[in-house]
Amino acid sequence: MSDPFFRLLHIDRQSGARRGRLVTVHGPVETPAFMPVGTQGTVKGVMPELLRSTGTQMILANTYHLMLRPGEQVVAELGGLHRFACWPGPILTDSGGFQIFSLAKLTRVDDSAAVFRSHVDGSVVVLSPERAVAVQESLGADVIMTLDHVIALPAPREAVRDAMQRSIRWAERCRLAQSRRDQSLFAIVQGGLEEDLRVRCARELAAMDFPGYAVGGLSVGESAKEMYHILEITTPHLPEEKPRYLMGVGRPTDLLEAVRRGIDLFDCVMPTRNGRNAMAFTHRGPVRIRNRRYERDARPLENSCPCPACQFPRAYLRHLFMAKEMLGPILLTLHNITYYQRLMREVRNAIEADCFAEYHQERIAHWGSAATDGTGGS
Amino acid sequence: MSDPFFRLLHIDRQSGARRGRLVTVHGPVETPAFMPVGTQGTVKGVMPELLRSTGTQMILANTYHLMLRPGEQVVAELGGLHRFACWPGPILTDSGGFQIFSLAKLTRVDDSAAVFRSHVDGSVVVLSPERAVAVQESLGADVIMTLDHVIALPAPREAVRDAMQRSIRWAERCRLAQSRRDQSLFAIVQGGLEEDLRVRCARELAAMDFPGYAVGGLSVGESAKEMYHILEITTPHLPEEKPRYLMGVGRPTDLLEAVRRGIDLFDCVMPTRNGRNAMAFTHRGPVRIRNRRYERDARPLENSCPCPACQFPRAYLRHLFMAKEMLGPILLTLHNITYYQRLMREVRNAIEADCFAEYHQERIAHWGSAATDGTGGS
Repeated sequence: MSDPFFRLLHIDRQSGARRGRLVTVHGPVETPAFMPVGTQGTVKGVMPELLRSTGTQMILANTYHLMLRPGEQVVAELGGLHRFACWPGPILTDSGGFQIFSLAKLTRVDDSAAVFRSHVDGSVVVLSPERAVAVQESLGADVIMTLDHVIALPAPREAVRDAMQRSIRWAERCRLAQSRRDQSLFAIVQGGLEEDLRVRCARELAAMDFPGYAVGGLSVGESAKEMYHILEITTPHLPEEKPRYLMGVGRPTDLLEAVRRGIDLFDCVMPTRNGRNAMAFTHRGPVRIRNRRYERDARPLENSCPCPACQFPRAYLRHLFMAKEMLGPILLTLHNITYYQRLMREVRNAIEADCFAEYHQERIAHWGSAATDGTGGS
Repeated sequence: MSDPFFRLLHIDRQSGARRGRLVTVHGPVETPAFMPVGTQGTVKGVMPELLRSTGTQMILANTYHLMLRPGEQVVAELGGLHRFACWPGPILTDSGGFQIFSLAKLTRVDDSAAVFRSHVDGSVVVLSPERAVAVQESLGADVIMTLDHVIALPAPREAVRDAMQRSIRWAERCRLAQSRRDQSLFAIVQGGLEEDLRVRCARELAAMDFPGYAVGGLSVGESAKEMYHILEITTPHLPEEKPRYLMGVGRPTDLLEAVRRGIDLFDCVMPTRNGRNAMAFTHRGPVRIRNRRYERDARPLENSCPCPACQFPRAYLRHLFMAKEMLGPILLTLHNITYYQRLMREVRNAIEADCFAEYHQERIAHWGSAATDGTGGS
């Protein structure tokens, strides 16, 4: 683990929101930061140069998917994920925990490992903490994650506690298994919606001195209020000088609420998946571009946006989706990632200026002014 | 019709291949030229900037598709196809003839018009020569085409003759219907595989003095040899000082054979469609990137190619197709268009240097050296 890996540059005087920087051999990541999701080693439909032009510094790739296809050995032979996918910037790989418990057909989980059937070809795969690290070392990302035991919520307290405790034991084994010194291993806080379990998990992992911490097992069906509450009681027990990553979250409003509670790093499929489904994020709220109201609309999605989609009239973007042309998903994906990255840049600027709370209020006011139909009358 | 619309710059001394230039208000088109197909107002998966970077100067769009969706009035209200689709360069629209007779459910065709059912919503549409021109004037392309009567081959000589004669009558009506002076209307030579009908059609249309001529109704199931023969007997009857466009053709080898027979302009879905289906064109022959042999291949598709796909290892391109990621079709589309445009640039250079025949031989030798499995042992 390279040191200093994370620099905490400033804390907003009013809100406590954090401005920091991850330093990796593949370049810096200004935080708070949003990582687009490149599940199978590609952010769907987006070439690296274009991804870079959205303001993206770091991307996430999924260990589960890549170990099944093309296989981590293929990636390793090609020189690792950065060279395989031609992404020169920082990469984070998750450990596969979430996908095993959501996508795969899980056959057994005990302390030794999770055993599941591949969703690609049905073959039996064993993923232990040691193998999760080995695979991630083959892939070669800058940040790698401990294997955690994710369970569906709501769940009995006992099941939540068992999974949390197992996640801690697995985190320790991941650390012991690590052989590469150039990757930063993050541990994942679990504990469902049980306050005391979250606190205990955070404290125990904090004592183990990982280079970074994630909050996992959220955005799995609980309310936003519950999620914010869990963040609020968890982050104070994480070391201030280490980066904090909220996994799989979320909507623009969730990002701001989490930043206010001390989160530095995010990933989510929302900008890319929603973009493919014809939904564009804007500062005036979401635009559902298939709506008939845009049939003859000559305006861009957003006047101030520098993305490739915003050179076109909305009428053309709508036409692309109505005609099932893949340029539609491509363009709205680019717009949405650009939107998320613009939002995070504004967040960083607001923290530096000690006015994050005001910025937060302003954003909510503008998003709120938009009806769910999209454009807020603009 | 703006004059001089076409400049014949040079004729190769050995082969008779032509080097020319179309001059439009949206910029020049160096010929021989290849137009990628943007059926519904978009070359599938390719943004205008990237399309430009392939070397593309002019694109084709389909009147039939655009009149059905989004409708030519929508395009006209948005300022025409150039502004709607944000393509600043020259555009050619076909008349809809080919699609009516191939895609739509044709219900009736007589001298007045073709009547068919839309493949989008089943509604009845009447396309007369006058309407074909009106729609193309609303779309606003630089080059527009007369409505022709296309029939499937083989067909009885009488049916071929009737369709050819109707195409001539319709061409005249299209010319009379034209109200915009800033679009160049090309007439289309029909006549199937009947030599005398082709010659008669070419002569009659030539006498009507259109600003350009197309050879239509080819590449519809006949052999390559038959197609080349029809070209060979047709082009001598077209005016030398007017551009000649071979519609819907073809493979790289077809392009060279047609250039040798005096063709200046081409369009074809082959580079884009084959690219989406994992087939890449190279100077050493086709590469079928799904082949297992590329699983761990670190080389680019083609060393000398400047396209975005050729920054990636073949192993990654293969992975994208195996994982059904849309970046695969996007990248191979870009590669193939770039390949076609590089080929046409080399063709133009060879004609200027009076060595087209040698260049042609060289290309065939290299393509031939590649086994159908792809890389020719490279």
